[in-house]
Amino acid sequence: MNNFPGLSLVVGGARSGKSRLAERLVRAAGLPLTYIATAQAWDDEMAARIAQHRDDRGAGWTTIEAPRDLCGALASARGAVLVDCATLWLTNVMLGDGDVVAEAAALMAALRAHPGPVVVVSNEVGWGIVPENALARRFRDEQGRLNQQIAEAADLVLGVMAGLPMVLKGALPEGVR
Amino acid sequence: MNNFPGLSLVVGGARSGKSRLAERLVRAAGLPLTYIATAQAWDDEMAARIAQHRDDRGAGWTTIEAPRDLCGALASARGAVLVDCATLWLTNVMLGDGDVVAEAAALMAALRAHPGPVVVVSNEVGWGIVPENALARRFRDEQGRLNQQIAEAADLVLGVMAGLPMVLKGALPEGVR
Amino acid sequence: MNNFPGLSLVVGGARSGKSRLAERLVRAAGLPLTYIATAQAWDDEMAARIAQHRDDRGAGWTTIEAPRDLCGALASARGAVLVDCATLWLTNVMLGDGDVVAEAAALMAALRAHPGPVVVVSNEVGWGIVPENALARRFRDEQGRLNQQIAEAADLVLGVMAGLPMVLKGALPEGVR
Repeated sequence: MNNFPGLSLVVGGARSGKSRLAERLVRAAGLPLTYIATAQAWDDEMAARIAQHRDDRGAGWTTIEAPRDLCGALASARGAVLVDCATLWLTNVMLGDGDVVAEAAALMAALRAHPGPVVVVSNEVGWGIVPENALARRFRDEQGRLNQQIAEAADLVLGVMAGLPMVLKGALPEGVR
Repeated sequence: MNNFPGLSLVVGGARSGKSRLAERLVRAAGLPLTYIATAQAWDDEMAARIAQHRDDRGAGWTTIEAPRDLCGALASARGAVLVDCATLWLTNVMLGDGDVVAEAAALMAALRAHPGPVVVVSNEVGWGIVPENALARRFRDEQGRLNQQIAEAADLVLGVMAGLPMVLKGALPEGVR
Repeated sequence: MNNFPGLSLVVGGARSGKSRLAERLVRAAGLPLTYIATAQAWDDEMAARIAQHRDDRGAGWTTIEAPRDLCGALASARGAVLVDCATLWLTNVMLGDGDVVAEAAALMAALRAHPGPVVVVSNEVGWGIVPENALARRFRDEQGRLNQQIAEAADLVLGVMAGLPMVLKGALPEGVR
């Protein structure tokens, strides 16, 4: 535990195995497990996706639902924390007409101040053709900026491709392959 | 040959140089070469792309056309095998109303059972904004799951960016830069 | 300086921190700084983006505006050169009905012949679902080919994710983290 990273970022494409890798990472801290879920079941497709993630995760987690108030959720979270994911949180902020710059600054302060290990999952969304939709363009800009901010503050940053980690910053703790 | 990986996955974006890298890899096995082609010439654009790939590949290959029946193609393939690519195969399964889970399970069993070296090329398709089209969203989920399955079974996994390999799992055999 | 790479490529998704990383790299050459800007302010969104990049860059740069004539710009550039970016240049060539193959060949010749260090920034655009738009499909093919050509000629190739470099070819010069 002494060398377990304080803040970690696990970043990659959709269905790349980010959540599963992040779960293995959080378990390696050897602490009680808290799962902060940002997903909201807007429709059947999303409800099925949430249920699938919960089944994949298995038992032993305290879950906090926090579609938007990640700062409050972090304040009450105990042990090793998994935030899944920054991309749905950003979606909720933008669709809720939130002030992205202010909310991201508050989130970064809460992540830096949190006393125990936190692993944040986030998506890379800027590796395709420029979207025709202006909101989509704005989203990928904000997501890119947010990922850079979390990565700069993090002790460990893992890119994920086909379920496999690429160490971009720091070092994988023992017990995580 | 002793250390040549049994199953390899070469994964990356479109036009990233995946096929060329995979061909260099397969040649390094020092065996007769079999090319399993999943592409179908639906239109002139695809026909031109297929012809371009064939020209790039050069001589010395036995080609098996297998838009859908990869298991049958693997059963009859000799020597070192290149499957190009899992993304067009998945497209053919989904457009043909196939049972993706069952066909992917059969493919994985065939890949695991194949006695000689096999290199599978596949695309990363989940690094952009969430597609508006429901079929596209389903495709990127299925592609992500398939890539994770192949990567888990593989001895060697290479990500490709700008024609250059990133070793995600295993080690590049001698003779492949 | 003795070991500073002659030609470098910095490649990644949108808003991944490519430009900032490329600027740190160019500064490490310890030479006068030339910035070759390919962006054109077609609309307010792009004008704001250009102004943001200029503010991020800070003082000390000689700027050459070259939306299309990168060869001419390279011929007159002194010191260490940052070309930002190949993606907007390719956009300008394609929207201007240029001959992409011929212009890319001329650009590659100019990059190879340039006497001092050059760092080229470029986007990865092929990691999403196949675009429905034919021009977008052609763009990602041409961008992928161009990135491969630059990477093949380069001494140093860096992929960027969440602001962090992945060394794909060569080695980071001292003084660049």
